[in-house]
Amino acid sequence: MSSDRRKSDIRMRGFPHRTDVADVIRLIDERIRHLPAERVPVTSVAGRVLAEDVISPCAVPGFDRAAMDGYAVHAHETFGAEAYSPLEFDIVGEGYPARPFGGHVQSGQAIRIMTGAPMPAGADAVVQAEAASESDGKVRITEAVTPGRHVGRRGEDIEAGNVLLHAGRRLRPQDLGVLASVGATPVPVIRRPSVAILVTGDELLPAGSKPAGCMIVDSNSPMLTALLHRDGVAHVRVTLLPDKPDLIRQQLIDSPEDVLFISGGSSVGKEDHAPGLVSELGELKVHGVALRPASPTGLGFLHRQLRPVFLLPGNPVSCLCAYDLFAGRAIRRLGGLSPEMPYAVRSIALGRKIVSMVGRMDYVRVAIRHDLAEPVAISGASILSSTTRADGFVLVPPDREGHAEGETVDVHLY
Amino acid sequence: MSSDRRKSDIRMRGFPHRTDVADVIRLIDERIRHLPAERVPVTSVAGRVLAEDVISPCAVPGFDRAAMDGYAVHAHETFGAEAYSPLEFDIVGEGYPARPFGGHVQSGQAIRIMTGAPMPAGADAVVQAEAASESDGKVRITEAVTPGRHVGRRGEDIEAGNVLLHAGRRLRPQDLGVLASVGATPVPVIRRPSVAILVTGDELLPAGSKPAGCMIVDSNSPMLTALLHRDGVAHVRVTLLPDKPDLIRQQLIDSPEDVLFISGGSSVGKEDHAPGLVSELGELKVHGVALRPASPTGLGFLHRQLRPVFLLPGNPVSCLCAYDLFAGRAIRRLGGLSPEMPYAVRSIALGRKIVSMVGRMDYVRVAIRHDLAEPVAISGASILSSTTRADGFVLVPPDREGHAEGETVDVHLY
Repeated sequence: MSSDRRKSDIRMRGFPHRTDVADVIRLIDERIRHLPAERVPVTSVAGRVLAEDVISPCAVPGFDRAAMDGYAVHAHETFGAEAYSPLEFDIVGEGYPARPFGGHVQSGQAIRIMTGAPMPAGADAVVQAEAASESDGKVRITEAVTPGRHVGRRGEDIEAGNVLLHAGRRLRPQDLGVLASVGATPVPVIRRPSVAILVTGDELLPAGSKPAGCMIVDSNSPMLTALLHRDGVAHVRVTLLPDKPDLIRQQLIDSPEDVLFISGGSSVGKEDHAPGLVSELGELKVHGVALRPASPTGLGFLHRQLRPVFLLPGNPVSCLCAYDLFAGRAIRRLGGLSPEMPYAVRSIALGRKIVSMVGRMDYVRVAIRHDLAEPVAISGASILSSTTRADGFVLVPPDREGHAEGETVDVHLY
Repeated sequence: MSSDRRKSDIRMRGFPHRTDVADVIRLIDERIRHLPAERVPVTSVAGRVLAEDVISPCAVPGFDRAAMDGYAVHAHETFGAEAYSPLEFDIVGEGYPARPFGGHVQSGQAIRIMTGAPMPAGADAVVQAEAASESDGKVRITEAVTPGRHVGRRGEDIEAGNVLLHAGRRLRPQDLGVLASVGATPVPVIRRPSVAILVTGDELLPAGSKPAGCMIVDSNSPMLTALLHRDGVAHVRVTLLPDKPDLIRQQLIDSPEDVLFISGGSSVGKEDHAPGLVSELGELKVHGVALRPASPTGLGFLHRQLRPVFLLPGNPVSCLCAYDLFAGRAIRRLGGLSPEMPYAVRSIALGRKIVSMVGRMDYVRVAIRHDLAEPVAISGASILSSTTRADGFVLVPPDREGHAEGETVDVHLY
């Protein structure tokens, strides 16, 4: 459908075709792959996704070391030591982690050693301080030790050449510790996407303004920005635009970001410029989805760069719904994260029935009260406060007319 | 115990007293309250905690508005309209969201209206475009509407003067949308803590270095920094220090952060300066905890400012354990977040028994294989790779000697 035709006639209502939710998800999964790798210092990779297996370049520890404060000795020389028949050794030095004992421990000798200090040549075990007493340069040992006792062996934590962490892993805080300890830096991680949010509407004031007269405040871009950061986006740029096709077209051409969102003007009305512009500059693959309350959602790809463009409804609940189901999935795929929605799911009985329609999916906000899920607003795509009163949402599949009171449903928890 | 006495004698081993985990937690909960409020622009408050109730300064929508594209009419004039007996109205204008119709809709008249546009004076309902056809400046309506049909009433989303969001709420993406839409900015939120991490040890190289000889790389500060950011900390400063009491003392005096961590030197050995320094500069409330593998943990408060100082074991697994149970709790309390550990908990049967000791708590890393939890390393506080192989941990309470194979335990999932 051409942009001109749509503009010419307010009677051209509704979408000639609504794509099933499952087909939109399939398209996203087919067309959107993760971004290339980049190398990032180990101190900055928390939450990032490994692009390659990391092989340990060295062993940890890199040397045999004391695992206790005590005395480093030849284990076999301690055999027979007991509380009432201690054995005596000459103390010939001290070993600290950064100042190891440089000599060789001979028969009849011991050194004082601190936890973490390299084991000296000639010694093969540590007698812990509790089993020893020291005086006049000698130590009396009251406990026999076996070879290797209280010694951390070279490589016992990490062996050189082994795979330390596998590609695709989302890095946890302790993974940073492990990577730092082997000196694996910079770390190959999947690049995080950047997103431009083009917010269209003559009636919109930027977030941070006070509403005035018939002018309302853009609430979609602060919500989307927070969702994008949650989903690992590195950089978000927000631009407010009036309903002027030339300005929107120029932004679509000039924006350097990996993904573009157009919030508002995504339906089939006179002022809905976004669908026609995406068709003109690339390929509009989806326009209209069998999903309440986010039917005016679109997905296209700009020519050549094949950059995804999401048309998100201006109504804030619809916008949230379209992000949760589609745009967020694309963002998570680009960043190498699990594509599934990052909400915990809980099975819970309905306190009141949900009525839906066969042929479309319904995104129904629910509040949990007395361990029952109650729909807070079946309709009302503009009622954003319904999503703050809600504890989560239920997705009613398109082959269902709803869910009965008492039926157990999966609630996605906000 | 004075620092000098500890330094003088390597035989002074072990802690004279180990505080129960529950008592450390009680101390943290008694002494640590959330930080004061600050006012932050609405676009930057995702994940922040509200310091006060937010009352809506205005209604949303601020005016009655069209909820559909169509024709604004007097509802009672549509009564009787049907597909085969349409009723005709004169079109006297158009209403857009930012360009409302300024006149008064008289009897027999209608205006074209777009979703979101203010309802014109005189009209009280919208006939959707699908139920109308237009020609020669007239519109034929084929469906009767009741008053209020397809009209979003002033205040239907949010009423002025109502509590919009309650103090203590952690703000979700959609909450930012709601706050922006009423112009509630700046937003009163609890200030986020700042933390100084003092990493002590002559043998340590900064994270990002390669290990060399007996020098090892600091793995605690990258791990702790990631944990702190996860728990809402605004700013983390890392300083590496040699085992020199004067340098550590000066940092304790000079650091402006809300909380100080000292990583390493937290036990009772000759080079463990931190406990004595905290006693000297304030109050060392806990030193030694009945917790494996994090017994060398301490908690003190610096004089006057009453700033918490955590002594964290240098061994990385012990450090993680002490953070998870104690330091993280304090950080989350300061920032107004739920103090509980932010790990999902799953009940799962043990694939192998866990042996523990009555009188202390054990933090046991487990991997989940074939739906069974298997301990990956009972001991080995220095084996950080055990926490990357693990999927989570089990806390064995101090009144238990462990858990039998097949017993169901709570696994905290990393």
